[in-house]
Amino acid sequence: MAVILQIDFTMPAEMLGENLTNAARELAESINQEPGFISKIWTENAATGEAGGIYHFTDRASAQAYLEMHSKRVEAMGAEQIRSRIFDINETLTAINAGQTGKGQPGH
Amino acid sequence: MAVILQIDFTMPAEMLGENLTNAARELAESINQEPGFISKIWTENAATGEAGGIYHFTDRASAQAYLEMHSKRVEAMGAEQIRSRIFDINETLTAINAGQTGKGQPGH
Repeated sequence: MAVILQIDFTMPAEMLGENLTNAARELAESINQEPGFISKIWTENAATGEAGGIYHFTDRASAQAYLEMHSKRVEAMGAEQIRSRIFDINETLTAINAGQTGKGQPGH
Repeated sequence: MAVILQIDFTMPAEMLGENLTNAARELAESINQEPGFISKIWTENAATGEAGGIYHFTDRASAQAYLEMHSKRVEAMGAEQIRSRIFDINETLTAINAGQTGKGQPGH
């Protein structure tokens, strides 16, 4: 069953927005190749100096393995106070609220 | 611009899963009527006794208003240690990773 991985951390505000877009394009392309990866929403807040991601993975083990790898990677980029959770999805309630439970359509 | 609202909290494990599905169906229907609401993924972890949601809202003010209302509601249901973040979406990077940036298709 697909799971949600949510990660967030502090990151200097000047690294976010357009600068992150330019710096992380290849990183984003590489994430598409990670085992079990389905999708990622890139999250950021320049006002608080925080960023992160909301991921779908096909299974918990893949999400956990990615989390361990990615945590070290973002730490090396300046992230601090990394906080993560891996959640199951309540499919019935999510379907009522039009939430995505798996592979989505880019650009919606 | 659409924003992500992520919320999670502790909740007794016996309230999750099938019991949550049965108890929260009308709540889910009502959430579809909230101002600025786009979608919600219902998240839960019976092993840790945690639950929450990943929401899209059309704008930050709507997300903030919902968060204040919903926090009191889940507290009344037994939630503790409520933790929330409202994030902007990096649309360019999210598009590369097939993440949803707005209204999705139920059941995917």
